[in-house]
Amino acid sequence: MTSLGPIEEELAKARVAYRNWGRWGTDDVLGTLNFLDDAIRAHAASLARRGRAFSLALDFNEDGPQRGFRGRINPVHYMRDTGSAAAGTQGFPHGFGGADDHVVMPLQASTQWDGLGHIYDNKKAWNGRSCAIVNGDSVTGIERMKDAFTGRGVLLDVGRVCGDERGELEDGFAITEEHLRTTIEAQGATSAVRRGDMVLLRTGQLGRVRRLGEWGTYAGGDAPGLSFTTLDWLHRTEVAAIAADTWGLEVRPYEFPQPCMSPLHQIAIPNMGLPLGEMWDLEGLAADCAADGVHEFLLIAAPLPVTGAVGAPVNPIAMK
Amino acid sequence: MTSLGPIEEELAKARVAYRNWGRWGTDDVLGTLNFLDDAIRAHAASLARRGRAFSLALDFNEDGPQRGFRGRINPVHYMRDTGSAAAGTQGFPHGFGGADDHVVMPLQASTQWDGLGHIYDNKKAWNGRSCAIVNGDSVTGIERMKDAFTGRGVLLDVGRVCGDERGELEDGFAITEEHLRTTIEAQGATSAVRRGDMVLLRTGQLGRVRRLGEWGTYAGGDAPGLSFTTLDWLHRTEVAAIAADTWGLEVRPYEFPQPCMSPLHQIAIPNMGLPLGEMWDLEGLAADCAADGVHEFLLIAAPLPVTGAVGAPVNPIAMK
Amino acid sequence: MTSLGPIEEELAKARVAYRNWGRWGTDDVLGTLNFLDDAIRAHAASLARRGRAFSLALDFNEDGPQRGFRGRINPVHYMRDTGSAAAGTQGFPHGFGGADDHVVMPLQASTQWDGLGHIYDNKKAWNGRSCAIVNGDSVTGIERMKDAFTGRGVLLDVGRVCGDERGELEDGFAITEEHLRTTIEAQGATSAVRRGDMVLLRTGQLGRVRRLGEWGTYAGGDAPGLSFTTLDWLHRTEVAAIAADTWGLEVRPYEFPQPCMSPLHQIAIPNMGLPLGEMWDLEGLAADCAADGVHEFLLIAAPLPVTGAVGAPVNPIAMK
Amino acid sequence: MTSLGPIEEELAKARVAYRNWGRWGTDDVLGTLNFLDDAIRAHAASLARRGRAFSLALDFNEDGPQRGFRGRINPVHYMRDTGSAAAGTQGFPHGFGGADDHVVMPLQASTQWDGLGHIYDNKKAWNGRSCAIVNGDSVTGIERMKDAFTGRGVLLDVGRVCGDERGELEDGFAITEEHLRTTIEAQGATSAVRRGDMVLLRTGQLGRVRRLGEWGTYAGGDAPGLSFTTLDWLHRTEVAAIAADTWGLEVRPYEFPQPCMSPLHQIAIPNMGLPLGEMWDLEGLAADCAADGVHEFLLIAAPLPVTGAVGAPVNPIAMK
Repeated sequence: MTSLGPIEEELAKARVAYRNWGRWGTDDVLGTLNFLDDAIRAHAASLARRGRAFSLALDFNEDGPQRGFRGRINPVHYMRDTGSAAAGTQGFPHGFGGADDHVVMPLQASTQWDGLGHIYDNKKAWNGRSCAIVNGDSVTGIERMKDAFTGRGVLLDVGRVCGDERGELEDGFAITEEHLRTTIEAQGATSAVRRGDMVLLRTGQLGRVRRLGEWGTYAGGDAPGLSFTTLDWLHRTEVAAIAADTWGLEVRPYEFPQPCMSPLHQIAIPNMGLPLGEMWDLEGLAADCAADGVHEFLLIAAPLPVTGAVGAPVNPIAMK
Repeated sequence: MTSLGPIEEELAKARVAYRNWGRWGTDDVLGTLNFLDDAIRAHAASLARRGRAFSLALDFNEDGPQRGFRGRINPVHYMRDTGSAAAGTQGFPHGFGGADDHVVMPLQASTQWDGLGHIYDNKKAWNGRSCAIVNGDSVTGIERMKDAFTGRGVLLDVGRVCGDERGELEDGFAITEEHLRTTIEAQGATSAVRRGDMVLLRTGQLGRVRRLGEWGTYAGGDAPGLSFTTLDWLHRTEVAAIAADTWGLEVRPYEFPQPCMSPLHQIAIPNMGLPLGEMWDLEGLAADCAADGVHEFLLIAAPLPVTGAVGAPVNPIAMK
Repeated sequence: MTSLGPIEEELAKARVAYRNWGRWGTDDVLGTLNFLDDAIRAHAASLARRGRAFSLALDFNEDGPQRGFRGRINPVHYMRDTGSAAAGTQGFPHGFGGADDHVVMPLQASTQWDGLGHIYDNKKAWNGRSCAIVNGDSVTGIERMKDAFTGRGVLLDVGRVCGDERGELEDGFAITEEHLRTTIEAQGATSAVRRGDMVLLRTGQLGRVRRLGEWGTYAGGDAPGLSFTTLDWLHRTEVAAIAADTWGLEVRPYEFPQPCMSPLHQIAIPNMGLPLGEMWDLEGLAADCAADGVHEFLLIAAPLPVTGAVGAPVNPIAMK
Repeated sequence: MTSLGPIEEELAKARVAYRNWGRWGTDDVLGTLNFLDDAIRAHAASLARRGRAFSLALDFNEDGPQRGFRGRINPVHYMRDTGSAAAGTQGFPHGFGGADDHVVMPLQASTQWDGLGHIYDNKKAWNGRSCAIVNGDSVTGIERMKDAFTGRGVLLDVGRVCGDERGELEDGFAITEEHLRTTIEAQGATSAVRRGDMVLLRTGQLGRVRRLGEWGTYAGGDAPGLSFTTLDWLHRTEVAAIAADTWGLEVRPYEFPQPCMSPLHQIAIPNMGLPLGEMWDLEGLAADCAADGVHEFLLIAAPLPVTGAVGAPVNPIAMK
């Protein structure tokens, strides 16, 4: 593992090395999703040979991964009219009845994409804009990425390759570029990562969550995840996006002795323009990839396009 | 157009003719999505030749299509921490800042799928279950269809073929099987509808909504849409699902002189087990189809999997 | 009626004349509620001779006064567990059953108090603080006024005294100091307004709302209400608070030819520190006051103490 | 302490002994609040001699008493437009700026009244109605009690009289009629409980909550509280309502060896028609009562009148 200096120093170096401001114009709303073009999409579709579809979303409910950090609650689901149909009091003619439902939830509650307005570096959002975002992100709201998360997905199952007999990394395990390379080599040619890809990172922590029966301390607590040092790989490979099966993608505790908050996010989102995915359920897909040895697929991960949102829930579909 | 008898009579006949209860077992959670298999999915993926992705979702915001019917509001989007990053009062170290956001919305608020628990016929839900659904649909909740809406999509642009010079059908225009057949013929071979397909029906009304600048009376009011008589076609063709660009899919006013409420829904959902999609934005896709003459595509329309929900918002992606 | 100059000029004069910054210290959280002391409260309690209690709140529901201004919706009420008790599926022992409910609402949705953090004048909130209020008002949140709105209430039924045969003022009617004085004289000694009083202003518009069956254009539209010129009277009399039966308290359209937004609020709240009440239902109380000629009473109008809120719903109780 | 038989037996006896169905007519919406009349109110007002007002509400925020039982979350507070005033982007003229806010919360989240539609006994709600309550309680919704909770309050500070040196009862302490009588005697004449009174019961547990810094296990866990046996006293004294400083009013664990759920609620609400208050903050009032020896006061505890609600938040005001 690369030896890391103090957090402020490392952030300063990373800004110089990985900042993409202006790379796609001052009005850009896509960040590294600009790497993903129709040629990649067309190729990605050709990977869906068996026609197997895998949803990579957790179920959205009150047993979800949130424990109150920054006011994040789990989704609250409300029924309307339930019982009235059974009671026959809805007042509709000819035996018609129905029920509606509502949801209240943080857009960061469960399986989701962090948008470009979600994280700031010294009061600057993506492309150097001021972080004075009010009543929604009027420039890089997630609705601008409505159709952008559609392309080639590659699963890097670091848990299976570098983890324990259950295919899990322990909490605090910092995934470095070396682990990524080891994983790619072990998995074989289909997991080669290329420009414009969406990388799915499996740590296996979700397996522990399921054994525990609840997220418990894994909601905002210790976790395996990306080392700060992988920013170099993320930048160099020109991936379009990356998502993982943990609450926060990057390793916790952080790799710095100083007080610290999501340093990889701080470089990736506002500086690189790289969308990050969290709380993805990769278990079913990973088992299939392990079985057939194919780790690439068509990935359609279209966020709910809430206008001005700094992130959004998503039901990602991998097709093999 | 077939002449229609009184509503109760027509419903009685339709129940006999189109009811699919038991067809896929007593525990079925998919309804007509059972027609959609991996072979269809694999073929559908092969249709995405150009790698062009079209989001078919409206933006989710307060200017949306709802006007209060049954308590349906438009989505309400709340920011958290906005301004505090700018004010420097978030208390995070090393220049880290961020914002979260929340949403409150009916699951029926905007672009969505009606699930199998949404509509009842004489107190019976899909497969003959009691409509006594409480705190969510514990049997056919939308999360059971997480990965099911993935297959071949076919656009039937009835507005363009049978409508006015703007490609729009007038409000109250009842689309019959004949209109569907005329459209398929005019569009050509790629729009042949087959077992397991997801049909997208364009009336063109959304164009009027955009000219008006708001949904206005089109939220629950008059609209072009499917005639009750098309149930026969829907049943016979064994489509997996159907969605349209209007608030309610079926024609309004209804085709019966008697007081009436969504009669096509009453047969399609609880009796046939056919999921219905509403408020889809087909404008961009339709223009592309008209331009290249290809009306079939890969359709990935994965609903937000809210546990126990009787419907769900969706950001559908068509890939050509 | 006093002749008014251009809006910017009038605001400038009003700031000089009515600003109370520093009057109760730099840490003040009560504004003009400082005028209201325990001696006034004790006297006010002595006015409740008959023991008649009047709720001055509208019912909080989806038929309320909101039509979307600044994202204000009417309260949305959700039931939990309804039907499950009837269905016997709650899983509780010995015949126990129950239901809960939730509400989603703007704190400004219905009968409410505007708190001191609600309105700003040139980016300054009450007492000269910056308006950079984030995640709630940490200084003058409504919870600081938990027990403060308890004292003498005086009803000024300008509608009955100066209005039409129904006791209503027409929309656009600007209530001046002269109308207030005429009303006080007509009503008699019990309506003398003194330091520390909470004044309730009846325009009668709510009667029209009820005849129409809905708020319609009265939600944010034309209304009778206080003239900008009454700021002098509000300041001079040293009232603790004032509330009315309209959506916005002040007259609409505004009294200035220039583009204008709630100018009386702009002086009253951030400059004077005067809490304003809106959408109060004074109809029952006013009828009683007209009948017995007594226009003073104990008023307990305790806001729901949501931490950091810039306003709050309230169920005010007048006791005579 | 009276020896208690098996739960089902005790419930059966209690139904016979304490059921008030029909006592105030079949259309009754007030239950035991019928005991509270204007004469009591007038007398109660006369008790507010010093003009001191005490809010008995907790602050409503995310640190509140809920931990997820039956989907109960703590109130979620959302700001609108914060930051935009500071940024100068609101678009209003002449220096006007403002902020709104919203709240999402269970009506049972914090200081509240249980209404008559909240609890059922063998599928029966108050007065023998079916518990098939849907989309709100259309008969006994809390808005029917808008002005009813206004009368004489009596504090029974059992914690101070029967508890430890901190004035606290230990968790699991079952308050019996004997403890109530001991308390009344120790407190003196002003705490005599009479027909139509609203009794406030202080256990002192809230002091422990404050020492712990959070509700923790006290949200739905062990607590001091009313013994099931006090139903006799509640019925006999004909009190109008009773509220306490704990999450659930009655003692936990319950006094029965059998599986059990809120047995006192099951008799009090649907059978007696007695509204119950929970999570009231009696600390300040209790200190004052202990200091001056006066334990009676005017109590105005007007619930937020959400239409059809089975309970409601309240900011109760005691005036002495």
